[in-house]
Amino acid sequence: MEIDYSMIKVIGFDADDTLWVNETYFRETEEKFAELLDAYETKNKIDQELFKVEIKNLDLYGYGIKGFMLSMIESALDISNNKISQATIGEILNLGKKMISHPVELLEGVKEVLEQLKDKYRLIVLTKGDLLDQERKLERSGLSEYFHHVEVLSDKKEENYLNLLDHLKIDVKEFLMIGNSLKSDVLPITRIGAQAIHIPFHTTWQHEEVPVEEQNNNYLTVNSLKDIASHL
Amino acid sequence: MEIDYSMIKVIGFDADDTLWVNETYFRETEEKFAELLDAYETKNKIDQELFKVEIKNLDLYGYGIKGFMLSMIESALDISNNKISQATIGEILNLGKKMISHPVELLEGVKEVLEQLKDKYRLIVLTKGDLLDQERKLERSGLSEYFHHVEVLSDKKEENYLNLLDHLKIDVKEFLMIGNSLKSDVLPITRIGAQAIHIPFHTTWQHEEVPVEEQNNNYLTVNSLKDIASHL
Repeated sequence: MEIDYSMIKVIGFDADDTLWVNETYFRETEEKFAELLDAYETKNKIDQELFKVEIKNLDLYGYGIKGFMLSMIESALDISNNKISQATIGEILNLGKKMISHPVELLEGVKEVLEQLKDKYRLIVLTKGDLLDQERKLERSGLSEYFHHVEVLSDKKEENYLNLLDHLKIDVKEFLMIGNSLKSDVLPITRIGAQAIHIPFHTTWQHEEVPVEEQNNNYLTVNSLKDIASHL
Repeated sequence: MEIDYSMIKVIGFDADDTLWVNETYFRETEEKFAELLDAYETKNKIDQELFKVEIKNLDLYGYGIKGFMLSMIESALDISNNKISQATIGEILNLGKKMISHPVELLEGVKEVLEQLKDKYRLIVLTKGDLLDQERKLERSGLSEYFHHVEVLSDKKEENYLNLLDHLKIDVKEFLMIGNSLKSDVLPITRIGAQAIHIPFHTTWQHEEVPVEEQNNNYLTVNSLKDIASHL
């Protein structure tokens, strides 16, 4: 599919799993969490229970590592029927703290692509998650200099995007969003009349998955951030 | 002290304990937390330990209820030497969830004052804490309509304010900040050359207290938000 990007003046980048690795660390932590609980349930059942608790708490906690930590503790109490040891709860806290302090691992080609785009477009970062955590990752990533603005959103629905574009005085016709999540970075963007490029990441959180019938064809999909340069 | 506010075009309001009650709920939760642990330590010692853990974790978790919940759990494990019951950990999670879902209680006169100011000034909310939590409180408060912009900051230091004023294209000479925290809402503002009005709240978190020698006289102090109208 060939789309005309000649109107585009502002490019929004998702951060987690678009600029740097993120979901991988959640999956690794879930593995360790399941090991801590393996006396009580199968890995599969533990994964399911944790996901159920995360979704139940999403309205209260929002996205990000701190809510994930609280949901892991709640699930551990549930799954073990309050038998999980106190020391294990301490270990769950440590798993979460390690995630927060994890070094930032840039995806391939990110710096080169931003370098190519930075003089031609206004680049911004649009992410969800914990505010401090996302600011810190951007700082550690060494990418701050490429971006005019960073916005951490509580969610990425049409309404959130429209408010933000209005606030930043960006015309929807001049806006392109690039990200790995069809649900958060691509579909709401196509629905407000802006452009989107989808760059799938090998791992997607179940909550971000979209049934095929809800997908559309109004966006470009590329394999890697490096592939966008030829389209812009 | 009489200060000239004739240059002011934009007024920033702190939210927690300036527009609505907040610290009171933290104190109430700390009381309940101490009761849950009263078999292990005195109330005084429990308060101290919790505060120590909160400060230790502040760089990792930032401000807000989720970090407070995680620090309560960590303190409970520490204080009880891992003997606190699993059911009590579940109760700590519930204490935190109740805080997040607590109805918003506006401080006296807030609506009237905002009504008076809204056509004369551009009003914005500048707060720290959990992004989703603060957005939700503003929504529930019924005050959204008065504000042009809401910004949740990861911290309220000179640098955070300067970045924000730059981003929102606000001249420091035209900016007045109103809030209950000398440390976060008043002193950094006076240091960047903007104006500040201090409205003390009856309860201040220990971390927000400022030694007398660091205070200055470059701001007005009033007893209640209702008292600012006569100065503006």
